[in-house]
Amino acid sequence: MTKETADIGRMFGAAEAVETFMGFPACPDIGAAQAEIAILGAPCASPYRSVGPYCAGAPTAIRAGIAGYATSRSHQDFDFGGPLLGDTDARVVDCGDLPYDPEDSPGNRARIGRAVATLLERAVRPVVIGGDDSIPIPVLQAYEGHAPLTVVQIDAHIDWRDEVQGERFGLSSTMRRASEMGWVERIIQVGARAIGSARPGDYQDALDWGVKFVTARDLDAHGLEPVLDLVPRGAEVFFTLDCDGLDPSIMPAVIGPAPGGLGYWQAVTLLHGLAAKARIAGFDIVEFMPARDVQGLAALTAARLVCNVIGLMARQG
Amino acid sequence: MTKETADIGRMFGAAEAVETFMGFPACPDIGAAQAEIAILGAPCASPYRSVGPYCAGAPTAIRAGIAGYATSRSHQDFDFGGPLLGDTDARVVDCGDLPYDPEDSPGNRARIGRAVATLLERAVRPVVIGGDDSIPIPVLQAYEGHAPLTVVQIDAHIDWRDEVQGERFGLSSTMRRASEMGWVERIIQVGARAIGSARPGDYQDALDWGVKFVTARDLDAHGLEPVLDLVPRGAEVFFTLDCDGLDPSIMPAVIGPAPGGLGYWQAVTLLHGLAAKARIAGFDIVEFMPARDVQGLAALTAARLVCNVIGLMARQG
Amino acid sequence: MTKETADIGRMFGAAEAVETFMGFPACPDIGAAQAEIAILGAPCASPYRSVGPYCAGAPTAIRAGIAGYATSRSHQDFDFGGPLLGDTDARVVDCGDLPYDPEDSPGNRARIGRAVATLLERAVRPVVIGGDDSIPIPVLQAYEGHAPLTVVQIDAHIDWRDEVQGERFGLSSTMRRASEMGWVERIIQVGARAIGSARPGDYQDALDWGVKFVTARDLDAHGLEPVLDLVPRGAEVFFTLDCDGLDPSIMPAVIGPAPGGLGYWQAVTLLHGLAAKARIAGFDIVEFMPARDVQGLAALTAARLVCNVIGLMARQG
Amino acid sequence: MTKETADIGRMFGAAEAVETFMGFPACPDIGAAQAEIAILGAPCASPYRSVGPYCAGAPTAIRAGIAGYATSRSHQDFDFGGPLLGDTDARVVDCGDLPYDPEDSPGNRARIGRAVATLLERAVRPVVIGGDDSIPIPVLQAYEGHAPLTVVQIDAHIDWRDEVQGERFGLSSTMRRASEMGWVERIIQVGARAIGSARPGDYQDALDWGVKFVTARDLDAHGLEPVLDLVPRGAEVFFTLDCDGLDPSIMPAVIGPAPGGLGYWQAVTLLHGLAAKARIAGFDIVEFMPARDVQGLAALTAARLVCNVIGLMARQG
Amino acid sequence: MTKETADIGRMFGAAEAVETFMGFPACPDIGAAQAEIAILGAPCASPYRSVGPYCAGAPTAIRAGIAGYATSRSHQDFDFGGPLLGDTDARVVDCGDLPYDPEDSPGNRARIGRAVATLLERAVRPVVIGGDDSIPIPVLQAYEGHAPLTVVQIDAHIDWRDEVQGERFGLSSTMRRASEMGWVERIIQVGARAIGSARPGDYQDALDWGVKFVTARDLDAHGLEPVLDLVPRGAEVFFTLDCDGLDPSIMPAVIGPAPGGLGYWQAVTLLHGLAAKARIAGFDIVEFMPARDVQGLAALTAARLVCNVIGLMARQG
Amino acid sequence: MTKETADIGRMFGAAEAVETFMGFPACPDIGAAQAEIAILGAPCASPYRSVGPYCAGAPTAIRAGIAGYATSRSHQDFDFGGPLLGDTDARVVDCGDLPYDPEDSPGNRARIGRAVATLLERAVRPVVIGGDDSIPIPVLQAYEGHAPLTVVQIDAHIDWRDEVQGERFGLSSTMRRASEMGWVERIIQVGARAIGSARPGDYQDALDWGVKFVTARDLDAHGLEPVLDLVPRGAEVFFTLDCDGLDPSIMPAVIGPAPGGLGYWQAVTLLHGLAAKARIAGFDIVEFMPARDVQGLAALTAARLVCNVIGLMARQG
Repeated sequence: MTKETADIGRMFGAAEAVETFMGFPACPDIGAAQAEIAILGAPCASPYRSVGPYCAGAPTAIRAGIAGYATSRSHQDFDFGGPLLGDTDARVVDCGDLPYDPEDSPGNRARIGRAVATLLERAVRPVVIGGDDSIPIPVLQAYEGHAPLTVVQIDAHIDWRDEVQGERFGLSSTMRRASEMGWVERIIQVGARAIGSARPGDYQDALDWGVKFVTARDLDAHGLEPVLDLVPRGAEVFFTLDCDGLDPSIMPAVIGPAPGGLGYWQAVTLLHGLAAKARIAGFDIVEFMPARDVQGLAALTAARLVCNVIGLMARQG
Repeated sequence: MTKETADIGRMFGAAEAVETFMGFPACPDIGAAQAEIAILGAPCASPYRSVGPYCAGAPTAIRAGIAGYATSRSHQDFDFGGPLLGDTDARVVDCGDLPYDPEDSPGNRARIGRAVATLLERAVRPVVIGGDDSIPIPVLQAYEGHAPLTVVQIDAHIDWRDEVQGERFGLSSTMRRASEMGWVERIIQVGARAIGSARPGDYQDALDWGVKFVTARDLDAHGLEPVLDLVPRGAEVFFTLDCDGLDPSIMPAVIGPAPGGLGYWQAVTLLHGLAAKARIAGFDIVEFMPARDVQGLAALTAARLVCNVIGLMARQG
Repeated sequence: MTKETADIGRMFGAAEAVETFMGFPACPDIGAAQAEIAILGAPCASPYRSVGPYCAGAPTAIRAGIAGYATSRSHQDFDFGGPLLGDTDARVVDCGDLPYDPEDSPGNRARIGRAVATLLERAVRPVVIGGDDSIPIPVLQAYEGHAPLTVVQIDAHIDWRDEVQGERFGLSSTMRRASEMGWVERIIQVGARAIGSARPGDYQDALDWGVKFVTARDLDAHGLEPVLDLVPRGAEVFFTLDCDGLDPSIMPAVIGPAPGGLGYWQAVTLLHGLAAKARIAGFDIVEFMPARDVQGLAALTAARLVCNVIGLMARQG
Repeated sequence: MTKETADIGRMFGAAEAVETFMGFPACPDIGAAQAEIAILGAPCASPYRSVGPYCAGAPTAIRAGIAGYATSRSHQDFDFGGPLLGDTDARVVDCGDLPYDPEDSPGNRARIGRAVATLLERAVRPVVIGGDDSIPIPVLQAYEGHAPLTVVQIDAHIDWRDEVQGERFGLSSTMRRASEMGWVERIIQVGARAIGSARPGDYQDALDWGVKFVTARDLDAHGLEPVLDLVPRGAEVFFTLDCDGLDPSIMPAVIGPAPGGLGYWQAVTLLHGLAAKARIAGFDIVEFMPARDVQGLAALTAARLVCNVIGLMARQG
Repeated sequence: MTKETADIGRMFGAAEAVETFMGFPACPDIGAAQAEIAILGAPCASPYRSVGPYCAGAPTAIRAGIAGYATSRSHQDFDFGGPLLGDTDARVVDCGDLPYDPEDSPGNRARIGRAVATLLERAVRPVVIGGDDSIPIPVLQAYEGHAPLTVVQIDAHIDWRDEVQGERFGLSSTMRRASEMGWVERIIQVGARAIGSARPGDYQDALDWGVKFVTARDLDAHGLEPVLDLVPRGAEVFFTLDCDGLDPSIMPAVIGPAPGGLGYWQAVTLLHGLAAKARIAGFDIVEFMPARDVQGLAALTAARLVCNVIGLMARQG
Repeated sequence: MTKETADIGRMFGAAEAVETFMGFPACPDIGAAQAEIAILGAPCASPYRSVGPYCAGAPTAIRAGIAGYATSRSHQDFDFGGPLLGDTDARVVDCGDLPYDPEDSPGNRARIGRAVATLLERAVRPVVIGGDDSIPIPVLQAYEGHAPLTVVQIDAHIDWRDEVQGERFGLSSTMRRASEMGWVERIIQVGARAIGSARPGDYQDALDWGVKFVTARDLDAHGLEPVLDLVPRGAEVFFTLDCDGLDPSIMPAVIGPAPGGLGYWQAVTLLHGLAAKARIAGFDIVEFMPARDVQGLAALTAARLVCNVIGLMARQG
């Protein structure tokens, strides 16, 4: 019997605690968030009805994936050499999940955008748990009016289609949409491999815009340093992690797997490296598909990546 | 590679067809439905954040579970001795999925209720694919003003808690809420077994109200006839099927499994038996949890039950 | 993440509750048991090193399989039409697991025999959770000096080898050993099918002794009544359930599966039928192999059978 | 580590025994078979390249599925009340697998046909393990010149398409091709359910020919007797078992699963019932797809069905 | 429901497209191939009846594993920095699968040898998808009369037994047979680890012949450069990839797994490195066992390795 | 059908060989061991009833995981460049499994301690297969009176709690207990990551004691050399391997998984590196949980690590 079944069993009798990520305080009213960091679930933004729902349970699954450690938050976290939040007094809240409408992707995007904008207005850094890979579009949209952004993406695919059968806001167009936002000054895309939606012309458009690509093959050959070198010291970085950027051996729970993805330490080290020279202005993790998890290991892996982000953000004050 | 991966792969290039159940025409605008029967996905209504999302992908999974047969809709369906819709001219549409807000269960219920009410006003019979087992509350609410209802429920649990820690609209209170609706004149609950949320007092309340229970043990001992005998000829029947009412050997994809559930033919035969003496005024199937499916067999089973409902409704005109 | 992982996670921080079956009080000192019914884990008795350990985790797995319901023990149990213990004041304790020595099967048997004998001396009815199918040998041995026993066995195999390569106390000899105990006056074996260890001569020996066999084919053809007819009213019945007697579709977690086993209701109904005309003097469930469980469903099924036994014993006073 | 891995491991060192079904003697030269019964593997006949190979490993998987019992062949078989071959002196051989050419279905059919014809000429009854469901076409073809056949089929689908995109020998046309053979005098099809390849016209053609259908729904409602009543005493019966005729809960290892199939005892009892009034002139089992087996249980189930056929044939002399 | 089920479902109605690898044109008549590169399925060559069939479905499974990308062949392939075939005008065809006879391994070898020889005569480079690891014997045999070959093998095992119980053409003897071919001038074996069929004397024989071994431990310690250094610039390289050479975490779908195998990028980088200094005269991938795949990821991995080979061959003209 | 099923099947008929690790001679009487190396199974020591039994079957599962290679022990082992035991005349025995009492952890510890002490008195090096991670406590206790020990631990967790709810000998206190043994002069802990039971104060205590930590992040950044540098040449090393120290992608079969663990070659290379400069005085492998293995690959991985230890010990004389 899995934990969630047990919880349900208990709830039948007691309707006990609604879970938050790692037991951080719940903050359902985004507009009232008093925190440095806020976790926000975005089950779905996708305009493709047959795609998005596969990821809709992801925020719940990722929260559940690490729930057993919620009472150990003050323990030593060996990825940090101290507790998760260190000796900071950072406040972290979990705003729960946003509503979504499978038939109304503009509405989904608007809701996501408003929620993130609200957090940013309150100087709360967003940690968004998707949902499909069209979610970064409204998330990044919300940074309008804030400092110019460097977007660092981990993804097996580059997502630079202008449109797919008329649809301009799907998961194949994410980074092109980002490139059109005036406040995105720099894009670094890490982990591309194999074949995806992009045609050579799409790739060329990205190069012409100025995107810096570090493919999975590059990464295997040259390591992470070249990626970090692309980020100017002091930059405002938004880090978007499509789970399929990771290797399927550690992250099978994705819609579009491709062999040869990043290892766990590559992802973590990249995060820590970025935090050492830049400010992590926001983060999202997308494309997690619970139905393909194997024994909950992928959810745990995703959750630990979120923990690393939170620990780094906390240390940045 | 699963079908959905292939579809995504193809979509990266072509964004091809949004899938509907068995390929029936899409009808995203519920208020414009011109049909006798409408499929409606309701990903979630639950007030319990840690529960509902496990079922949010269910409508998609159930549609995908039978997608390979969409082009064979006119073939012989041996459960009917003719094509699925027979020689009727019934029109069936798929209205897609309703929006939901994980943090706003009153809103979820309102949306579900409005959608079903709209269908009923247009004389369209609803086939609702949940979503968690609090969904029948707003679905049944929408029948206000229509003919008195006989509710037939298949479920491992009776869902008669008045409230659970103050929450009155959760999945443990579904049938009690139904009993409070003036237009519900009769409730028959089939398949209860083992221990659930109900305490002896809850069960007694249900008996006092007049609920007729046919437990799973009763069913094993006496078969389906006693169930059918409880339904008056000509009744308006709403059939609500909690997937955990079925046996886990054929339906492992549920939140709260219990051994000893209904077999496939018990469910199908009950449906056909009801249709022979009463009118199927509506149907929902809830608590399907895609992450626990084994090789897609549970989704296929759920989809075939939906097919049987549609075929029966079509024949009723 | 599964429940047990969560528990471990919590324990790293808090070493919380040692679990007992359904939350019944722990009673590690068997000699001090003040109860009508005692659960006793017997991880292993087997003289075959390569067999027994596959089942050693079974008591833990079966307790874990139903742990989510421990706080709901007073709820309505629909298999009984009332709470699990009804309105009885039966006391049920969980004595935890016995020690075992993989290299010392006589010692294992001695320990099991002593533990059961101690319970019987104290008028506590034993509910033994194995462990492999050689466990009933010492369990039945402990009934020496008590009322003559009718042994009812559910098993795919008849276990009537006199010895296998010199070993007389292995899982292929269980029922022959039982037949040699003067206080076993009647043996009824239900569910035999396919090929097992028994040769025709072994089967003939069993017939000559007076064993009544109801094979799985008989059961399919004639139902449970003939089995119940074999038990005299008022008999003292020991019920031994080898999990492989059940069908692999509901009980894949066994060492030696065979298609065509008993369904869940056949097992439950047999238990209830026996309790209606005889006294359940003891029970064991053996051969559960956790590594072959699928999503914990087999553990839940085993646990619910144990619940039924406890509820019936409680009602017998 | 699974058995086959262990065998491979050993073979790396010792190339030990090539396995036969239940350890029966190997007889690679079909033309020299001295036996009453011969097992024959037919990996594939299919004209559909994307279908057939999914079943090509089936004969090996089914032999492996019961290999642990090869040394117990003389033990009591409780499905027979005696050893598998009883007190007969029936000789059973395993002729191994036929060659197949994925690109040459006429050649595949010719090879299968010749092999079966050779066995029949030598008065050896064939037990054919497929392979896809186009295999019965050449198998039945080989009965030309022998006694008129009653074909009893268990299948979820009726396979009565005259052609599919020009192909007349695919798995959707099996029974229509059978109906065209002069020596097939009677066809009984059991287990049809849901939607398959057949259109209403195909079904009508079958009815017009004289096929007797007992659908899965009929079977659930009325049991096996009506099927047996359709077979005249003394008939020569060819029994063809498409694995998808069985329920997916016991037989998930098929290409085209459908809920509501036959249970294990329904299949076994039908076999025994037929053998009691008719002569089992041949048998095939097809559509077993090893990649979808769960823990080898489906292979064991298939193998036990084959055992039952062999035991029945042996008793018929 | 998996893609193949969907396809079958569709085929029941429409018998649509027979699939080829990545949608390349089918060329069933090998003798008429007009192409630079031909894919050829060889389901089995094995003389061991209990081994070979486990891999017989591999060509189908690998084709299916990447079928979703067939329509995206002209997209950017990030492993190449351009489309899969780049700006070459290379023609690639898929010749489908060869026939095989489980009882006739000389015949299987002859068929494979003839097919490859035919391709080579037509200056078509073969990409052979096995089948078991005895397949490279006839494949390499077909290179007689062509330029001297350097054979580069990735494998957990060295396959240098002279015979195993008299059998000289089994999967334990592959590389020794290769060493006896006059046109094989150089053998490099990469990835050996743990224990396999080879005895110390076999290993010594290989060293005496001149084989260069780079064990998995060597590779972990020193990387790929030493392997590439062993290949003279301008060599004609045949690359044979036994899937068990890869690590089980990315390639569980093998008969004889061993921990510590090559990672994905090690395999890809070795291929690209070889292509940079030598000519890839042919390729095979063997020992893929579909029944052990997990969610199709191993098939996708195998298919992407085949894509890399095709892309490299195309670029070599 | 898995190997163990086959064995059971055979045993029903023949009770054949009790298996030992890699077929080494059995030596059930520890006090009579005439060997340089002894394998010893310790199913459980845990004081936590709900934890230990999950690992109780581990020794059996690990022996079974490599059983197919037992007859190939003299073959070339490519991790050694020669047979497993090389040209040494090392004698290796398998002492089978120790008894354990789930309710008596002091007794479990005493038994383990006595067994290891007996081996050490006879100059036999112990290779202990657990069981849970409290097992190293009594194992290390047994080294009292022998040469000062350097303990090298691989583990995701540091196990330095002084007590957890009063329990001082649980799996969260293992290394603190070790630090209190006068004969443990040095502790090196490798692989810590994420959050476990340790609080910052526990970690500080370990640093104060003098523990050298090489976290998983350190290892990723700097490799194994820093670990080896911490071990003085000629040290007596006890190597304790908690399976959760390995990465879940190669070792999912653990109670408390954490992403980012050691790879296979990291573990093997560390072992070989230690053996090159120090004496491997003993070894244990703990926390292997069979129920979470995937296709037996984790058991094979664990078994190969044990093989490497044995080969290294044998070479040290």
